Amino acid sequence: MAPRFSVTYFVRASDAEEAKQRALDIALEQTVEIPRSCVPKGYVEDEILGRLETLEKDPAGRPGYLADISYSEDDVGGDFLQFLNIVFGNSSIKPGLKVEDITLSPGIVALCKGPRHGIAGLRARAGIGQTPLLMSAIKPVGLSTTELARLAHDFALGGMHFVKDDHGLVNQKTSPFEERLRACVEAVGEANSKTGGRTSFVPNATGPATLIVERAMLAQEAGAGAVMIAPAMAGYDIIRTLAADPGFSLPIIAHPAFSGANVVSPDCGFSHRSFFGTLHRLMGADAVIYPNFGGRFGFTRDECLSIAKACADDIGGPSAIVAAPGGGMTFSRVPEMRQAYGNDVMYLIGGALLQEENLVDACRRLVAAVYS
Amino acid sequence: MAPRFSVTYFVRASDAEEAKQRALDIALEQTVEIPRSCVPKGYVEDEILGRLETLEKDPAGRPGYLADISYSEDDVGGDFLQFLNIVFGNSSIKPGLKVEDITLSPGIVALCKGPRHGIAGLRARAGIGQTPLLMSAIKPVGLSTTELARLAHDFALGGMHFVKDDHGLVNQKTSPFEERLRACVEAVGEANSKTGGRTSFVPNATGPATLIVERAMLAQEAGAGAVMIAPAMAGYDIIRTLAADPGFSLPIIAHPAFSGANVVSPDCGFSHRSFFGTLHRLMGADAVIYPNFGGRFGFTRDECLSIAKACADDIGGPSAIVAAPGGGMTFSRVPEMRQAYGNDVMYLIGGALLQEENLVDACRRLVAAVYS
Repeated sequence: MAPRFSVTYFVRASDAEEAKQRALDIALEQTVEIPRSCVPKGYVEDEILGRLETLEKDPAGRPGYLADISYSEDDVGGDFLQFLNIVFGNSSIKPGLKVEDITLSPGIVALCKGPRHGIAGLRARAGIGQTPLLMSAIKPVGLSTTELARLAHDFALGGMHFVKDDHGLVNQKTSPFEERLRACVEAVGEANSKTGGRTSFVPNATGPATLIVERAMLAQEAGAGAVMIAPAMAGYDIIRTLAADPGFSLPIIAHPAFSGANVVSPDCGFSHRSFFGTLHRLMGADAVIYPNFGGRFGFTRDECLSIAKACADDIGGPSAIVAAPGGGMTFSRVPEMRQAYGNDVMYLIGGALLQEENLVDACRRLVAAVYS
Repeated sequence: MAPRFSVTYFVRASDAEEAKQRALDIALEQTVEIPRSCVPKGYVEDEILGRLETLEKDPAGRPGYLADISYSEDDVGGDFLQFLNIVFGNSSIKPGLKVEDITLSPGIVALCKGPRHGIAGLRARAGIGQTPLLMSAIKPVGLSTTELARLAHDFALGGMHFVKDDHGLVNQKTSPFEERLRACVEAVGEANSKTGGRTSFVPNATGPATLIVERAMLAQEAGAGAVMIAPAMAGYDIIRTLAADPGFSLPIIAHPAFSGANVVSPDCGFSHRSFFGTLHRLMGADAVIYPNFGGRFGFTRDECLSIAKACADDIGGPSAIVAAPGGGMTFSRVPEMRQAYGNDVMYLIGGALLQEENLVDACRRLVAAVYS
């Protein structure tokens, strides 16, 4: 028998009997997807079929139960998307089910080597100790490469550790990918030579399916310090692929665009921690961007802190990655965020800096506030 | 000024003022993602910034409004994922927003060439007229290649037009991808030679990011009749890439695994028709699998019929594709489904056939029921 990993689902149900039936349906749906009576005896029934391990009333008080279901590594076949498919493929379409937690097994840890750099590697790249990382974004779409490169220069001069493309910047005629990449790497390098700092430029490698790896490699050759990819659009295997590619060595920053439905509804998708924490870590992202509490998105403080915790907890293999809360961060919120996140965090702040009259000064004030 | 496409969002709001504010926030979030006061005058403000075109109380009576927001083709930059990012990238993370409909512009139609075959091409391949298509799936995971190929043979002998891999079949040791592909193509060919039929085998090409195109090409060379891909896992640009690849000519069948959260919640994601209809058509899928009403998933009859309609409606470019409802279809439901869907449909039926004692006979009875 192969080792088994397990998934804990929240199952909406009015009583234990209904919950058990729904849980057994998940075990069937996620593996053999045929009526129970047709499941072949022997290997398929004993090994491949999902197994309901435990069922308990939801300790958080939601109207339902927590079902822990185990699955065989044999069913995964060494394929990360098939792992995701087992975790929540067809069952994602049934309302009132949510993936709460995923417990790994040795084969899954071997399949998902996790981040190449993690938070430790990002800090080393930035040349800092056990303190917060700072990231900003050049934007908006529509500016010329010269204007965007000037912003990258100023963010670097002001002391941000990572300066990324806005996730909407791809290959628009106003600033084609390669032109922008080269101009921004140069601009950041120029700022670094003035400050003695080690700011990295992070281009957005999300793009046409067959060009993502190519753009990531181009970024590496051009001297970028990381790449950004939005896995909910680009596919959930591409970060893992790049993180395991022996010819690629940059950190990878995950962007949450298009992923919202996977977390915002209490009635479907994933818990915040399992999606932005566990899954992104398994994918091999080194940093995961998500909307911070109190900004213009609706995540609660607890949900955000659960993500940060899942980025760092010991899960038996993948290194700790860094939570990168963004979206509506302002100067006045720095104390609150420091108190919430501590040092293991990457602050993503953009709009609040761009609103200030002098961008370099604004960055310096932010650095001072975060490091005071 | 470039032509503009538009997206109609359902915006949860208690009054028109709140709805307008939320709609203007979408226009900002989806394009420039900076505070309104920072938006550069001229090109960025006039062209790139999303534009609220109309706002009306939801005619369906939900607690909110419909906001129509237009976006410039310049913002897309010829990139399908950036198109998706504009449609719903960051705003997907805000609760109480839903993409209802997408209205194309000439540049989007040019970017998304749509399906290569569509429903007409699938029927031509099956050698049938304006009648329903029939598809089944070999399963479960855990069976050997010999056992799976025998199922493929019997489905073909029984008269199914397409016989696909279960979406959980990838490259497991019990049935490696290439071995299964060759064995099933041969088994289906053997059945065809007995019946004079034209059944196609459809392998699952979903897999490691850098192998999907390779597996699709392998399928084509081996004599498969189509390939299946689950875009919510594999990435939303891969079907478009294959459908536009001059070296690839097979139909593509989209599987809904992992996509559930995009549609099941009334509070986030997409309308059923815009996700399984419009978006899959733009991607270039020739058939789109989704859970049928009345089965073990929760879609309503109206939601399912809205998908079928969106697969066929004139949207100014992409050919009509075929809706492939599946999940819990049984013999007794054939009349109800015929009445609901008419002829422009591909019935996906698996478990109900596998439950019967003689699979070939069961398929023949299904064919007779559908064509009577």
